[in-house]
Amino acid sequence: MFLVEGNKTIAEIPSTKYKITDLYSVNPSSLPIKNHVITAITPQELKKISFLKHPKDSVAVCELRREETVGDVPIQLILDGVQDPGNLGTIIRLADWFGIPQIICSLDTVDIFNPKVIQASMGSFLRVNVFYQDIESYLKENTSPVLGTDMEGENLYQFNFPEKFSLVLGNEGNGIRPEIERLLTDRITIPRFGESRATESLNVSMAAGIILGQIFGRN
Amino acid sequence: MFLVEGNKTIAEIPSTKYKITDLYSVNPSSLPIKNHVITAITPQELKKISFLKHPKDSVAVCELRREETVGDVPIQLILDGVQDPGNLGTIIRLADWFGIPQIICSLDTVDIFNPKVIQASMGSFLRVNVFYQDIESYLKENTSPVLGTDMEGENLYQFNFPEKFSLVLGNEGNGIRPEIERLLTDRITIPRFGESRATESLNVSMAAGIILGQIFGRN
Repeated sequence: MFLVEGNKTIAEIPSTKYKITDLYSVNPSSLPIKNHVITAITPQELKKISFLKHPKDSVAVCELRREETVGDVPIQLILDGVQDPGNLGTIIRLADWFGIPQIICSLDTVDIFNPKVIQASMGSFLRVNVFYQDIESYLKENTSPVLGTDMEGENLYQFNFPEKFSLVLGNEGNGIRPEIERLLTDRITIPRFGESRATESLNVSMAAGIILGQIFGRN
Repeated sequence: MFLVEGNKTIAEIPSTKYKITDLYSVNPSSLPIKNHVITAITPQELKKISFLKHPKDSVAVCELRREETVGDVPIQLILDGVQDPGNLGTIIRLADWFGIPQIICSLDTVDIFNPKVIQASMGSFLRVNVFYQDIESYLKENTSPVLGTDMEGENLYQFNFPEKFSLVLGNEGNGIRPEIERLLTDRITIPRFGESRATESLNVSMAAGIILGQIFGRN
């Protein structure tokens, strides 16, 4: 089971693959869900149930549903050991924004049903299919181009993106691991325009946003 | 005073406008700072001083230094009530990455010396000048174009960016306030490519990253 918090996201669940088992709300009439018992609770009770510092109006307990069949899609993301729940949530939100239907995560990537991931995705987890797989095996059988970010790759702004590809995003501290790096067909770099050479690299979700902004901006 | 944590960022301070007053380290010899007394402390003491869940090696106590003279620069950011320290830190990091030398914050924007801002900026606060001002008065005297994000603005990917401009970024929940909105000369929108109309808007720092990626990618 996992928890979805807030009327806005909960209201979307019935039209998705997820199933609500229990609903709790401090204000049941505010929750636009039909054909489901809603248990009224006090704000104190909500505070105990919620994972948020500032709990919202309602919580829904939902059944976990793991994706099994990876689809064949033009553009997809592959995450190699992303650890921060906020980053995974933000990346799911970006995928949803740009219409990317699926994300394949390495087995050591943070779990999509981590409450912080669900929260950071702002409901986007309902619309993007997220798989957990041995990505090394997956990529070995994959035949379309595999792009990854690299400090010494081709300039993002001059790179010709193929029609179909996977974009690999690596771990926050260590980047893409060597076994996966070897399977990349193209390496791209987001050029730095600041004069300072001391700037740390961009955060993985920000790098994803800038790259996806480029890809879709050209269409 | 404010605190800077971690050898990597501390090592940069002597070459900036900031001044270290005290240095504490669990491993003084690891800190590449000359001509300064470094007090050896235990990991337990560090844990008490640090604002981090997982404290790093060293902390530096520094003197606050507020910027006073706003410079005349080609491209600058103006923040209208950004509240989340992580967002401000991320935006400072983006400015540094793209070589934007200054950010003007409304008086109700989260303080740059908030420990979470300093941390999220990853040392970039040392290289970007951040001012706090009445941005309404500032913009009324400003003569170059003032761009802002808007749900119904011009398509980012088709917009012709002027040579010189300010980009206004609004509050996380409420966006740009009406008094400031009225002072915008151009409104731009990041088009959404996903089919779902339910996707929430992008986070303010992500929107900034995608817009800046576009601006600098065209040069």
